[in-house]
Amino acid sequence: MSALRVGLVGAGFMAKAHTLAYVNARLLSPDALPPVERVRVADVDAELARRAASAYGWSEGCADWRAVTRADDIDLVDVATPNDSHAEIAIDAARHGKHVLCEKPLANSLAAAREMHRAVELAGVRHFVAFVYRTWPAMALAKRLIDDGALGRLIRLRAMFLHDYGLDRTLPLTWRLRRSSAGAGSVGDIGSHVIDLARLLAGEIRRVMARSATVIAERPENGSGLMRPVDVDDLSDVLVEFAGGATGLIETSWVATGSKMDLAFEALGDRGAVRFTWRRPMELQFYSEDDPAERRGFRAIVIGPRHEGAAPFWPVAGQGLGWGDAFTILLRRVLASTSGQPVAGAATFLDGLRAAEVVDAAIRSATEGRWVDLSPDELPVDPRPVLRRPPDG
Amino acid sequence: MSALRVGLVGAGFMAKAHTLAYVNARLLSPDALPPVERVRVADVDAELARRAASAYGWSEGCADWRAVTRADDIDLVDVATPNDSHAEIAIDAARHGKHVLCEKPLANSLAAAREMHRAVELAGVRHFVAFVYRTWPAMALAKRLIDDGALGRLIRLRAMFLHDYGLDRTLPLTWRLRRSSAGAGSVGDIGSHVIDLARLLAGEIRRVMARSATVIAERPENGSGLMRPVDVDDLSDVLVEFAGGATGLIETSWVATGSKMDLAFEALGDRGAVRFTWRRPMELQFYSEDDPAERRGFRAIVIGPRHEGAAPFWPVAGQGLGWGDAFTILLRRVLASTSGQPVAGAATFLDGLRAAEVVDAAIRSATEGRWVDLSPDELPVDPRPVLRRPPDG
Amino acid sequence: MSALRVGLVGAGFMAKAHTLAYVNARLLSPDALPPVERVRVADVDAELARRAASAYGWSEGCADWRAVTRADDIDLVDVATPNDSHAEIAIDAARHGKHVLCEKPLANSLAAAREMHRAVELAGVRHFVAFVYRTWPAMALAKRLIDDGALGRLIRLRAMFLHDYGLDRTLPLTWRLRRSSAGAGSVGDIGSHVIDLARLLAGEIRRVMARSATVIAERPENGSGLMRPVDVDDLSDVLVEFAGGATGLIETSWVATGSKMDLAFEALGDRGAVRFTWRRPMELQFYSEDDPAERRGFRAIVIGPRHEGAAPFWPVAGQGLGWGDAFTILLRRVLASTSGQPVAGAATFLDGLRAAEVVDAAIRSATEGRWVDLSPDELPVDPRPVLRRPPDG
Amino acid sequence: MSALRVGLVGAGFMAKAHTLAYVNARLLSPDALPPVERVRVADVDAELARRAASAYGWSEGCADWRAVTRADDIDLVDVATPNDSHAEIAIDAARHGKHVLCEKPLANSLAAAREMHRAVELAGVRHFVAFVYRTWPAMALAKRLIDDGALGRLIRLRAMFLHDYGLDRTLPLTWRLRRSSAGAGSVGDIGSHVIDLARLLAGEIRRVMARSATVIAERPENGSGLMRPVDVDDLSDVLVEFAGGATGLIETSWVATGSKMDLAFEALGDRGAVRFTWRRPMELQFYSEDDPAERRGFRAIVIGPRHEGAAPFWPVAGQGLGWGDAFTILLRRVLASTSGQPVAGAATFLDGLRAAEVVDAAIRSATEGRWVDLSPDELPVDPRPVLRRPPDG
Repeated sequence: MSALRVGLVGAGFMAKAHTLAYVNARLLSPDALPPVERVRVADVDAELARRAASAYGWSEGCADWRAVTRADDIDLVDVATPNDSHAEIAIDAARHGKHVLCEKPLANSLAAAREMHRAVELAGVRHFVAFVYRTWPAMALAKRLIDDGALGRLIRLRAMFLHDYGLDRTLPLTWRLRRSSAGAGSVGDIGSHVIDLARLLAGEIRRVMARSATVIAERPENGSGLMRPVDVDDLSDVLVEFAGGATGLIETSWVATGSKMDLAFEALGDRGAVRFTWRRPMELQFYSEDDPAERRGFRAIVIGPRHEGAAPFWPVAGQGLGWGDAFTILLRRVLASTSGQPVAGAATFLDGLRAAEVVDAAIRSATEGRWVDLSPDELPVDPRPVLRRPPDG
Repeated sequence: MSALRVGLVGAGFMAKAHTLAYVNARLLSPDALPPVERVRVADVDAELARRAASAYGWSEGCADWRAVTRADDIDLVDVATPNDSHAEIAIDAARHGKHVLCEKPLANSLAAAREMHRAVELAGVRHFVAFVYRTWPAMALAKRLIDDGALGRLIRLRAMFLHDYGLDRTLPLTWRLRRSSAGAGSVGDIGSHVIDLARLLAGEIRRVMARSATVIAERPENGSGLMRPVDVDDLSDVLVEFAGGATGLIETSWVATGSKMDLAFEALGDRGAVRFTWRRPMELQFYSEDDPAERRGFRAIVIGPRHEGAAPFWPVAGQGLGWGDAFTILLRRVLASTSGQPVAGAATFLDGLRAAEVVDAAIRSATEGRWVDLSPDELPVDPRPVLRRPPDG
Repeated sequence: MSALRVGLVGAGFMAKAHTLAYVNARLLSPDALPPVERVRVADVDAELARRAASAYGWSEGCADWRAVTRADDIDLVDVATPNDSHAEIAIDAARHGKHVLCEKPLANSLAAAREMHRAVELAGVRHFVAFVYRTWPAMALAKRLIDDGALGRLIRLRAMFLHDYGLDRTLPLTWRLRRSSAGAGSVGDIGSHVIDLARLLAGEIRRVMARSATVIAERPENGSGLMRPVDVDDLSDVLVEFAGGATGLIETSWVATGSKMDLAFEALGDRGAVRFTWRRPMELQFYSEDDPAERRGFRAIVIGPRHEGAAPFWPVAGQGLGWGDAFTILLRRVLASTSGQPVAGAATFLDGLRAAEVVDAAIRSATEGRWVDLSPDELPVDPRPVLRRPPDG
Repeated sequence: MSALRVGLVGAGFMAKAHTLAYVNARLLSPDALPPVERVRVADVDAELARRAASAYGWSEGCADWRAVTRADDIDLVDVATPNDSHAEIAIDAARHGKHVLCEKPLANSLAAAREMHRAVELAGVRHFVAFVYRTWPAMALAKRLIDDGALGRLIRLRAMFLHDYGLDRTLPLTWRLRRSSAGAGSVGDIGSHVIDLARLLAGEIRRVMARSATVIAERPENGSGLMRPVDVDDLSDVLVEFAGGATGLIETSWVATGSKMDLAFEALGDRGAVRFTWRRPMELQFYSEDDPAERRGFRAIVIGPRHEGAAPFWPVAGQGLGWGDAFTILLRRVLASTSGQPVAGAATFLDGLRAAEVVDAAIRSATEGRWVDLSPDELPVDPRPVLRRPPDG
């Protein structure tokens, strides 16, 4: 298998998570995946780029992202910058024939997301959004149970992503907390993850009714330390209707007192149900009406090597994976796909666009206090063959 | 202490729960509470009334509820009939000078609830609604923590009451499933309980945005067995804004696959939080920012005799109370109050009215797809002295 | 059905729990159970007896327990005194032809327990020990799953009963904490409960190896307040071998920091397993190798009216029962049995004797630091027909 | 910082876990840790060694482990072979001046463990045993709480490591299941981990009383497939007394139906308690008598970057680490220490020896059915300075 040459744009926090994932994905599956060449890191802060390259084993660092998107020695461009630069970088990469992996959310506006999707489709490159929870083994098992009919007809989908770090009033107004750069607050940042999970499990969303709040209304400006108003939400509730008829409820918060990474969902069908919480990331709760009435109950399935996504890791069920491993699992898909293997499971720019549509509708709904319908564009048909299961499934 | 003479209207399922509670309340606290004379049971089905009287130790059964509401030998009228007869019976009892305990929800319409509240206030009798969870020890502890400031300023209140018994398609169209008799579906029936808890913990509700669904749209008619459309919701989500500024979210469902009595809430403040679920009814989860940062976490407080409401029961923390005991705790308040003791804690017709206002607004909101403001009437001042703590507190 | 006339010996704490249970058992099942006449309470403290009689609705109180055991107007003698008087009272009652219900443990010595068992068998009366957890619905379900073969061959039984109230150093040297009156410490008091559960689920015990400790070695004497040495254990571990081949492990403690009523067990077979904890008393965890490998896990069966013992209570699964209800369930068995109905499920003096044998062996083992074999006496065959299921099963 | 040159002996399953850990430890902390050169892998199966080298990025593979232990280009020898070859390899490495990291248990006999410890001490090299749970963040927090006095005087230590994979009767008689190669069954294999944790938290063990069983008594021989008797335990209970006075209880099992990696412990003191289970690896339960009586309860502390060991990973509490990360955390200690930094926390050969003493005593106790005292050798004083906290603490 010939090596995959990767260029990374953005040398911030995500550079570490992505680098480890490239390395681990390959080490865990040396026979199934191509070697990865960590060719180049670009960052507007050239010094940061150089330090990241040196620290994380990339061959070089540079200031100009075009040295990544347009370079001949790059096959895959990994975009890990703030949201407002995703579009320009990813589109340029696509136009230069690179496969693209983009951090979530896809963009800081629906218009940008649309353009990005159009660009990668036109270019015919592979494209991925880092919705890392979609390929998490317990999620994949939930998806399989639903696809296999174990839940019957889907009635209800609840999902939430709750943190409390936003309660810290000294937290400065970083790019994530400004609408101009981030595009949205909690509903777009962590919200795009749960919207993606909701779509994965319950299908497309038809309309939404959202309520947003900004509980911590002022924060210190980076640098000056002056208090400035926050113009994005730190808490949102989104009532959802799925095209398939199920009702949904999505909650996001950065100010959920005591919540530490409470990513959770519940999918209820008329024959069964699944529940998940990141507080017990290696378990999926499954309830089936097929059990005898006296013996029915949610069972805690402990994820192990039998389960899709977990196989390349450790031999004993319950040994457990961590947050970093979620990136490794995603990158397994990305590496397999970009090396020509017909695998599926990773979210694409189409998924990123769909999430952006929902976020956009939610923001309008919260502003206007009414239900907002989604009208997805006519979609280009994805021309590539897709297998249901990755090789380790 | 002179005996309290009770008359019961309605000999259905609740007659058992209420009878046990009268008996147990007195047996648990023979020195603090008056003896209870179970004088008379009335039911439109005279034979059922007679059997209930005989089975549950009431002196007699009769068909005419006026033989309870207007009798000289009755001090307290206990209304345990379907919702659509609450108003007529309770108002008649009040007009004849009886104290009244009414099953929830207070009425099958907001108008009826208003009339009932006016009637008891005019009559100057004691009045109670059987919101039995409000006095449950873990709830009382949650309330005390909030009142004591342990949570800081309240940001968020989530509450839910989820069952799955409605998924049984053979469940017939009983009075609870018809709007004419019940007034509302899940949002009014189990919803009135959680609305009451929400108000208890977070104060009055200013406006609501609701979404309702009827997942099981047809059910067999009682008797004929013919399939008839269901005209009440079996699933609702209510976005809430509290007058105090907190955001709220209330969910009710009879079709929550796998949920067995999932009554739960979470109250989040900027200094702490509490969580409760009926799946562990003897625990309250409490999180405090006052703990050292490295040692912070939700702690499971196990309810025991130290905690308000639980004292008259068993000596060891964690021995545990059951659903029937919730009625016993409520009736302790009712018996103490009607025997002239200045206790509080039980919900009154005013609480029943407030819940009815919220249910009414939620139904309008769900129908019209928009936020609905609540405009509470000018309230008569409650003239009776109220102590914060019941005697066992 | 003619009334059952009950006499109670002992007017202490248990008088309340037993009285409520007599009343509730009958109220819950007026058609299935006889009326109960609360005839007489005896206590060495005559004044206490009179107050208990008045408070709890017994016709009279008296000082001489023989006025209960030998009275013509008594059918069932309920022995709720300290352990060291069980034998004399219960034997006298049996000799006078009364059915006997005795609080646990059966006696304060193995010799006394043997005599008691012989006496009731000779007298041909019905006899019960208040092992109230054996008939708790989740335990009954565990037993049924084992009997139905859902666990396969039993490999392992772990059980524990842990409290922390003994950590309070001001707790005085009551009769429970003196070997002369109690017979044993935690291993006999709460231990007899878990030994009974262990036998229920895994069959007879062949040998034991115990280790005991007295963590709080001195306590204030009642009255004088002088510190005196404690001569019973407050913490024990008992390794067990069952006649059927399973290994067992039993833990008891009054000094288990943070434990509030942690009664728990786990029964493991080669085809499945069950787990229970009183922290979630309305759930039984069940694991089955019959589930497909990818969907296997412990499922939380929520107890409801379908389950044995819970039927007479409330209509919705998960509403929940409390500690007091455990006595009600036991007394349903006792009342049905003493009124001539062929029911089973309640523990008898034989079960009390078997537990006493294990406690005796455990104390010897702990003292001598070696395994101790049990050699049960040749048992008289129980002559009465026994049905597997109580009427509500 | 000059690079650390590592040689690995054993190309089996652990080669993957160790390789990833070397890589990740360095990538997570490029500034704090030396670069790691993966120099050479040796395995008796030369082909396996070569494939592992190629797959996992080691410069070469070879058949002779002496090419690792005696090579000039190696600083640290990592011994990841079956237990019966640990001693010979590790001792040879030490004699040739290499630092040594040895997989657990240290050896397949107490005598071998003693020799190994003597060898590394004589050689003055750094030595580590891969007790990877000791440095897991929640364990480190438990240790710190105990050291800080938050639990008061320790009363009790329970620990267990339970799996069910041994219930699979087709599992062949690998080296882990033969006494000659493994030295012991569950009590030595997974048992050595929990013995290490017990010592970490409660100090040295004075005497033990063990009971072992071999539930699956025959297994197919590798190759022939013929059924052969199993000569090691698959289930053990070890009663323990600590030198400090606390009582202990250790359970190990490969046949714990439904248990998937149930590594758990509970340390109880007279002022507080901690509980941990690998089922929720990112939480430590902490109970403190210092909390007000009405608000006391076990609190779930969610591990995050504030906690020792977790800092180099991810920025948000609750993101979570997996089993592989446990090796990374251990190797951080090993790499820092072997590069001359004065860090502590990792288990040494002395810890490995102490665990071997306990395992040896447990086996003798189980065989002879009696308590066995431990008489630790006179210990050489560890000559190296030790800091309480690693740099990321």
